[in-house]
Amino acid sequence: MEALKLASREKQSPYTVVEIDSPQGPVRIGEGYCTVIAGPCAVENREEYLLIAQVLKEMGVHILRGGAFKPRSSPYSFMGLGVEGLKILAEARELTGLPVVTEVMDTRDIELISSYADILQVGSRNMQNFSLLQAVGRINKPVILKRGLSATIEEWLLAAEYILSAGNQKLILCERGIRTFESYTRNTLDIGAVVAVKELSHLPIIVDPSHATGRWKMVRPASKAAMVAGADGLMVEVHPYPERALSDGKQSLNPDNFARLWTEVKQLADIEGKHY
Amino acid sequence: MEALKLASREKQSPYTVVEIDSPQGPVRIGEGYCTVIAGPCAVENREEYLLIAQVLKEMGVHILRGGAFKPRSSPYSFMGLGVEGLKILAEARELTGLPVVTEVMDTRDIELISSYADILQVGSRNMQNFSLLQAVGRINKPVILKRGLSATIEEWLLAAEYILSAGNQKLILCERGIRTFESYTRNTLDIGAVVAVKELSHLPIIVDPSHATGRWKMVRPASKAAMVAGADGLMVEVHPYPERALSDGKQSLNPDNFARLWTEVKQLADIEGKHY
Amino acid sequence: MEALKLASREKQSPYTVVEIDSPQGPVRIGEGYCTVIAGPCAVENREEYLLIAQVLKEMGVHILRGGAFKPRSSPYSFMGLGVEGLKILAEARELTGLPVVTEVMDTRDIELISSYADILQVGSRNMQNFSLLQAVGRINKPVILKRGLSATIEEWLLAAEYILSAGNQKLILCERGIRTFESYTRNTLDIGAVVAVKELSHLPIIVDPSHATGRWKMVRPASKAAMVAGADGLMVEVHPYPERALSDGKQSLNPDNFARLWTEVKQLADIEGKHY
Amino acid sequence: MEALKLASREKQSPYTVVEIDSPQGPVRIGEGYCTVIAGPCAVENREEYLLIAQVLKEMGVHILRGGAFKPRSSPYSFMGLGVEGLKILAEARELTGLPVVTEVMDTRDIELISSYADILQVGSRNMQNFSLLQAVGRINKPVILKRGLSATIEEWLLAAEYILSAGNQKLILCERGIRTFESYTRNTLDIGAVVAVKELSHLPIIVDPSHATGRWKMVRPASKAAMVAGADGLMVEVHPYPERALSDGKQSLNPDNFARLWTEVKQLADIEGKHY
Repeated sequence: MEALKLASREKQSPYTVVEIDSPQGPVRIGEGYCTVIAGPCAVENREEYLLIAQVLKEMGVHILRGGAFKPRSSPYSFMGLGVEGLKILAEARELTGLPVVTEVMDTRDIELISSYADILQVGSRNMQNFSLLQAVGRINKPVILKRGLSATIEEWLLAAEYILSAGNQKLILCERGIRTFESYTRNTLDIGAVVAVKELSHLPIIVDPSHATGRWKMVRPASKAAMVAGADGLMVEVHPYPERALSDGKQSLNPDNFARLWTEVKQLADIEGKHY
Repeated sequence: MEALKLASREKQSPYTVVEIDSPQGPVRIGEGYCTVIAGPCAVENREEYLLIAQVLKEMGVHILRGGAFKPRSSPYSFMGLGVEGLKILAEARELTGLPVVTEVMDTRDIELISSYADILQVGSRNMQNFSLLQAVGRINKPVILKRGLSATIEEWLLAAEYILSAGNQKLILCERGIRTFESYTRNTLDIGAVVAVKELSHLPIIVDPSHATGRWKMVRPASKAAMVAGADGLMVEVHPYPERALSDGKQSLNPDNFARLWTEVKQLADIEGKHY
Repeated sequence: MEALKLASREKQSPYTVVEIDSPQGPVRIGEGYCTVIAGPCAVENREEYLLIAQVLKEMGVHILRGGAFKPRSSPYSFMGLGVEGLKILAEARELTGLPVVTEVMDTRDIELISSYADILQVGSRNMQNFSLLQAVGRINKPVILKRGLSATIEEWLLAAEYILSAGNQKLILCERGIRTFESYTRNTLDIGAVVAVKELSHLPIIVDPSHATGRWKMVRPASKAAMVAGADGLMVEVHPYPERALSDGKQSLNPDNFARLWTEVKQLADIEGKHY
Repeated sequence: MEALKLASREKQSPYTVVEIDSPQGPVRIGEGYCTVIAGPCAVENREEYLLIAQVLKEMGVHILRGGAFKPRSSPYSFMGLGVEGLKILAEARELTGLPVVTEVMDTRDIELISSYADILQVGSRNMQNFSLLQAVGRINKPVILKRGLSATIEEWLLAAEYILSAGNQKLILCERGIRTFESYTRNTLDIGAVVAVKELSHLPIIVDPSHATGRWKMVRPASKAAMVAGADGLMVEVHPYPERALSDGKQSLNPDNFARLWTEVKQLADIEGKHY
């Protein structure tokens, strides 16, 4: 992949570890670490979010996730709480000391979201929203860049190149499944992409097993597969009551199932020599 | 497709014909018309653009195309002339009397681009950039919405629903090929999507045979196929000297080949009872 | 496509026209012809088959189709009438004077089927059943080779190469849609493949719009698109009573709708200068 | 998946463990076991095959693989040694005491191959060769059924249903990657399919990481991912000298790299409580 420059492992020094500031000191994502991000798809209400945040904190999760601005296929679906959601995220961070990540969808929202969140996420549908890539490349916050629904590995790394070349080196990639003909799963987890990215790039790569499978029963085995394939972390949807989630309920774990996942993943992280 | 409301043919009155203002009176796109948009992928320099604009005008093309802000997979590729490109487009419009269409990639650029162009295009990579969809939904300019690289027909129509529900009814869909395993062609022209959209929606649909095939030799037969399958128009890349185009040269027609295409397409439009 | 030898247009003389013997003299498929094959998916019973055969004959169809041995995803589905179906096909040929085509799925059946049918079809699922390809390559009967569900154009032409290199030059290719993520249509008609095959190979190529779309309303526009894209013919599912067909009812035309298709296709064939 | 009967876990007793006879007693594949099949893509010559067979035996591999009849996209590629290859396989079995598996492509070859091999493999290209499925369903030998290049999980299980309903219950499924738009890897390993099959069916499922990735460096992490996702075993291409293999050299491991893979996989099998 000749077009790669700043994202290339060959052309840069090996393996970047991104540090995320948090009230409790830096959280790291990259080679040698197994970092877990968890939380509900969307921030739906204050009480439930603070509850799940504390539960996850006690389980040893490193970073909280929660959508305030939600990309939805239909304009008639729940779109998130917006600024109110950001405030709840900030409160959860205060409460738990954990950094929070949330999605940004519009260049005009970057400043606002940056004032609340520790990490900004660029979602799959915006992986080739080049204006947004350039804009998050000019801020001084870590960014998670999800792979596009049908992006090749090369296109994904070139999208990363947009952010890096604009100046922001705190970049984390996230494989979240690709679109194929298979319809039993929501997407097809491309485990080979994890291996490929570790080979081609120095950037950290994590896996979102929730979107990659779309079925909560598959999230645990998919997470374990990601870990032994070389992923540097996971981003998992956990909801206190998945059956009444406003979005992605079918792919969300309840806290008990997440606890089992995390126990089994840590066992594998030990074997792989990864810190958590 | 229950989620459809404003884009649904069943729920709305049949077939919308979009009118585009131009110095020479309105240009129409929709059922009963065969409307052709042509021009180079990008506006590369003033002289060549004005030259090709006049040639196309004389051939009977209805609308000129040309990219000023270009979405490119790599940040190191030619990205268009920006504002200078917009000015050249405006000059071509003055010269020919034809309306012009160009792509918008950032919500912050909508006002600027609207002041130069007659139609705004939302590209494939931004089909689910919901902020952009909502923003172009709030202006009073026709919009062309290209299908995403791997968007289902339903997702595409729901993206249209974003624009319609924000208030803008001057919307035209554009099929430009989807991503499949086949690598001989750049994309796979989904001719069935044209038929499906005419069945499901009242919105006009045009076809971009240049991106759909990626090979100039295939553009003419693909255009003819689109016409008899029910497309309301075409958007074709034509460059005065394809071999030295800064982008998409391989899929661009020279004026002679475009002339042959247009002759054969008009013959089919006559059979189908479409005005041009 | 360097691996191509006998299927390559460049390396062989231009455009093969395959002649099929019939009681009424030869039927031709290839450049310059628009040849139509029609009939129900499966031969279901004698009376209905003879009826539709005569109707199709009167409409000017050139070749009759009908499955006697049906490939079905589930072993519990209707699999065709077997030898009894072959006998009905032979009777229809007697009655109408038209040649008949039917599918062969097993090397052991080739001799049997050859004794009843004029053309043998190798179906999509067997496109890379190399034993079968070699075996039909050794007989002296025309063969229709359908494209595999997710075969690249190159793999398809290499499958053709198997038949040609075994000695049988009476070979016709049939595009029948490929598998993609789109689920509104049964498959995605790859109209570009028609253009590509005419460019790369001298072999005749026809299109099966019934399988390519899976919806009868889409069959007519898809057929027209195939014709102007350069296809040498069509293979269309027509059933006297689609609503009670034992297979593929949703994609089958009734005789009236087929008549309309055929009228419109002939109009296009005239423009393209194709005999029918 | 209502159409499933004999392959369904819900409708049948839980988890089948297939027993394969061998000079050294039965080898088992199924829930609770981690069974490894290894060997070169094709049997290329006697000396090298016997050498690698002994090396693999000493490493603790359970079953030997090697193609005698090779399915190749082009008729001009190396197609295997045929009967001579079968004889070498039988000799390797004598020498090592390990059972051997080889591919069958033609119903007419089943008896011949059965007289040499302990397991018959139906390859991806023949997954919907229903005659072959029915024929191997009538023998009393274990069968490995590979997933088709673009088969859905449902189609794959229905193909299994063909074999089971014909009488043969000694059936093992093999995921070997599916065809997607991604071209960096030869195929896309569908790790979710492993999880899905364990959920939907009682049949054993193994993974072929060599075809699924097409790159030897990716085979080890892909194998580990398969193991923790629930696979009952692996089928890995190992060649004494990959750089001069007549087929699949790029995806073949040399013995040293395979040894490392096997060590790491066994460590995971211990954690998962699987025998090997």
